Amino acid sequence: MGDQKIIEINVNGRTSRETAVPEEYMFLGGRGLTSTIISSETDPGCHPLSGDNMLVLAPGLFAGSTLSSSNRLSAGAKSPLTGGIKEANSGGVAAYRMGRLGIRAVKITGTGGPGFDTLGIRISPDGVSFDDLSELRGKGTYETAQRLLDMYGKKCAFLVIGPAGEMKLPAACINVNDMEGEPCRNLGRGGLGAVMGSKGIKAVIIDDGGADSPWKGDPEVNQAVKTFARHLKEHPVTGEKFAMYGTVMTLLNVNSLGGLPTRNFSAGTFEDAENIGAETLRKTIAARGGMTAHSCMPGCVIQCSNKYVDADGNPLVGSLDFETVCLLGSNIGLKSLDQIAELNRICNDIGVDTMETGVALGVLGEAGVFRFGDFQAVKKIVEAVGKGTEIGRITGSGAETAGRIFGVERVPVVKKQGMAAYDPRAIKGMGVTYSMSPMGADHTAGNAITLAVDHLDPKVQVDPVRDLHINTMVLDSLGICIFTGRVTLGDKSIVEQLLKAFLKRTVSFDQLRENALETLRREKEYNLKAGIGDAQDTLPDFMKKEKLSPNNSVFDVDPLDLGGFWSSR
Amino acid sequence: MGDQKIIEINVNGRTSRETAVPEEYMFLGGRGLTSTIISSETDPGCHPLSGDNMLVLAPGLFAGSTLSSSNRLSAGAKSPLTGGIKEANSGGVAAYRMGRLGIRAVKITGTGGPGFDTLGIRISPDGVSFDDLSELRGKGTYETAQRLLDMYGKKCAFLVIGPAGEMKLPAACINVNDMEGEPCRNLGRGGLGAVMGSKGIKAVIIDDGGADSPWKGDPEVNQAVKTFARHLKEHPVTGEKFAMYGTVMTLLNVNSLGGLPTRNFSAGTFEDAENIGAETLRKTIAARGGMTAHSCMPGCVIQCSNKYVDADGNPLVGSLDFETVCLLGSNIGLKSLDQIAELNRICNDIGVDTMETGVALGVLGEAGVFRFGDFQAVKKIVEAVGKGTEIGRITGSGAETAGRIFGVERVPVVKKQGMAAYDPRAIKGMGVTYSMSPMGADHTAGNAITLAVDHLDPKVQVDPVRDLHINTMVLDSLGICIFTGRVTLGDKSIVEQLLKAFLKRTVSFDQLRENALETLRREKEYNLKAGIGDAQDTLPDFMKKEKLSPNNSVFDVDPLDLGGFWSSR
Repeated sequence: MGDQKIIEINVNGRTSRETAVPEEYMFLGGRGLTSTIISSETDPGCHPLSGDNMLVLAPGLFAGSTLSSSNRLSAGAKSPLTGGIKEANSGGVAAYRMGRLGIRAVKITGTGGPGFDTLGIRISPDGVSFDDLSELRGKGTYETAQRLLDMYGKKCAFLVIGPAGEMKLPAACINVNDMEGEPCRNLGRGGLGAVMGSKGIKAVIIDDGGADSPWKGDPEVNQAVKTFARHLKEHPVTGEKFAMYGTVMTLLNVNSLGGLPTRNFSAGTFEDAENIGAETLRKTIAARGGMTAHSCMPGCVIQCSNKYVDADGNPLVGSLDFETVCLLGSNIGLKSLDQIAELNRICNDIGVDTMETGVALGVLGEAGVFRFGDFQAVKKIVEAVGKGTEIGRITGSGAETAGRIFGVERVPVVKKQGMAAYDPRAIKGMGVTYSMSPMGADHTAGNAITLAVDHLDPKVQVDPVRDLHINTMVLDSLGICIFTGRVTLGDKSIVEQLLKAFLKRTVSFDQLRENALETLRREKEYNLKAGIGDAQDTLPDFMKKEKLSPNNSVFDVDPLDLGGFWSSR
Repeated sequence: MGDQKIIEINVNGRTSRETAVPEEYMFLGGRGLTSTIISSETDPGCHPLSGDNMLVLAPGLFAGSTLSSSNRLSAGAKSPLTGGIKEANSGGVAAYRMGRLGIRAVKITGTGGPGFDTLGIRISPDGVSFDDLSELRGKGTYETAQRLLDMYGKKCAFLVIGPAGEMKLPAACINVNDMEGEPCRNLGRGGLGAVMGSKGIKAVIIDDGGADSPWKGDPEVNQAVKTFARHLKEHPVTGEKFAMYGTVMTLLNVNSLGGLPTRNFSAGTFEDAENIGAETLRKTIAARGGMTAHSCMPGCVIQCSNKYVDADGNPLVGSLDFETVCLLGSNIGLKSLDQIAELNRICNDIGVDTMETGVALGVLGEAGVFRFGDFQAVKKIVEAVGKGTEIGRITGSGAETAGRIFGVERVPVVKKQGMAAYDPRAIKGMGVTYSMSPMGADHTAGNAITLAVDHLDPKVQVDPVRDLHINTMVLDSLGICIFTGRVTLGDKSIVEQLLKAFLKRTVSFDQLRENALETLRREKEYNLKAGIGDAQDTLPDFMKKEKLSPNNSVFDVDPLDLGGFWSSR
């Protein structure tokens, strides 16, 4: 642990240097670290596509070990989509490899040339090198991934962008390869792929040169890994349900609560929900020889991931997840998992966020650009994103822009980011999360569907959701997947014991919550300086006025209650 | 004066009612009235295209008389372009006719149906009627104007939108007919045409039924009209230069100051400036038999307007003005007045703001969508706005959106509104205006080019510009053209005497300034509630870093100095 480092890269001069990790970053990994660095080292007034913006990559504190659910990678920057601070995190193997190299963060500044540089940045035990990948310019992420594995070896991890990122589209994502080499783990939200593209970077390759875990042979760590896995396996959700059904298990629940976004958030139930639900998904994958109970990152015992295959058993996309199934499914009137999986695959290949794309498509459907349910029309538009045609660029610029261009009033975004797959008029806690998160309408900031509250009652949401935001930030700053929450937030000594085993330091969960609140406030402060005022902590007006079937509810959490979100402890 | 009224219209129920003018509106006309009504009667959180947004039309306090330069019409709403409060004002005959009907304001709420209603709202001495104009759906403003004059009589005034407004494009404008019936006076900025379009209104027709001036036979008013005209005629600029050269007289001055936006604000001088300058314009119009020294509204003795004709002497567009000549000229590399006039005519016909279109085109040129200077390519794009193709909609959504979609970092906007034809790195006071106006980058809020300061000195701008904003608001709230400023702001008793003659009330200019400051603060407060934070009171980052030739200057007015703009008296 002694030789952990931060790597600073400037693409303009093709320079890099290593610095030590400051003591104050001791308990900061993942989102805690990306947001701390972005807020303290970048100008909130900079253009997101300028050289002054910084792309920060930060694994969690346990990365490189086989601790379950703890090899997540965060990426942060000023967002081209929202104009505010952004963090997105994903599984895959990149954080694992970075952890083995002792890398706590990679900070990248500068911009590419007038064209796209198609730069490869390789980080290995030998340091940082800059490779010319111009033969991969314009290539999809699947072809790019195959080539990178050929060039750099099967064990390399990489972050890669597709054409969307090269075009700097505000909904472009960064893809991370999973253990099978598929570039399907997405740093999805907020256009971080565009930031990478603006710096001329096609791929960041992490080659750990076969390095061992920094904790190899540490009996205390080995024991902690086993104990944590046992805790997760003992809980019915993290131990069984996620592995059986994946994240899609949420779909029918949300549908029964009347909060499943359907045809641009115009209804809360989808008549064909069963058809795209978890049981259908499970049976389809099983019948065709795909994979469920798949780990998205090394060591994970929750195994919520899957590999969806086509009717002939050929790989289509891994993993087919709830947000995508809804936003590229019910939200645009599609009722076939095969169709949704195909769109998912195309989005992955182009390197565009499936969620933002789905919300943008909903808006385009409302505008009459295509008919809800018309798969061929939708597919053409999604393919157009990769081609950079005008309708493609509009779609790849996200829902807010699509609504602006087509004069649509019903645009389900907060801070210009498209909503996740929960209509906040039926799942009101999620409306609090969407409203208050500095990230915009991002469900992962406080996944309120997990709260044991009456989701329709406007009076019981704010306090538990705020608490959840803080707890989520604790997990995000450790790099532990939020799906462990049922366990890690249930018995808070678990996290304390993990830190003691891995860091040989004692820290209370309460102290981590203090740190988390500090990070949240830093994010909020950054946004204020970037021009995102308090009044943007709100849902689109139509959701406060237009009733959502079948509950006939509006979003009616009192703004005065929301006002206390940032001031109270 | 006793029976002045406010007309409230709701398009949903096709209802209207008249109310009396509250005493507190005594000295509030134009922008003062639109902004007071918008800020006190509409929800800052409403969607600009929703029925809750209000389109307010307010003539100045002297409208209906022949007082020079005083028949301006203000329109206000929450802007689809900026998301904040908006006012735009224009000449033409509408305010004159409204003044004769005793109308101080028209407030319109509600929305059109799922399609575009193509509603005609006729206001006459008989009241308000709602006409079906569906035969004019999709028609350009020139054909529409001709038809309206046929239908409602040659003396009618009207406000009309073109296809851009029907499509609710954020850069859509409202056109007002001039004394010759040409729909060429634009309520140009901020997408007010989209607000009118969202309410399903194709045209508002003002038929005064031959009513006289409310001040007919008032000797004190007659004398004031004559005295004011004499003051204006005695000043060399308002008395002669404007009539000779029109607003284009500014072009070579701005060019010599190094502040003429050229090829998307990448240079401050244009090599072909002479070719599009005032002398060329004047000679061309004279040689072809067009018209200079034309009044844009009844009674105006400044006569800065013109009627530009083609090589055969056929009417092309009235009036060809500075902002358009630069933004559709040097800013996109065009050096022919004929080409610029043709683009101007097309924009007018489509009903899209020439300024926002020019700035958006600059961004598209930078993105490589066309080559700067390629008139045919530009013309095709501008025509596409009217057709509603994707590139047309992108252009008609304004520069900010164009930059977002094409990944351009150099986007000259403030609060999402494209800059006027003064690069703020060379005319730094204009940068203060762009930064601080609640309207976004709107030169008319404080036309700093008129200040007798060193335009390059960052230390001498803020106080005089702030003073100018307040004085401008005084004029805008009286409905007096800002081009009178050299006279009306030189001897402030002139305005006091006008009010005494027309309103029979005594009020000091200082009191009007207090009122103006109150209105400015209302606008600012509205924006804050609409989510436009203090940090948006700034220029795009590139203008603070990238040097502008030939002065090699950046915008370097100290943000701390700007911070006092709203707090000081």
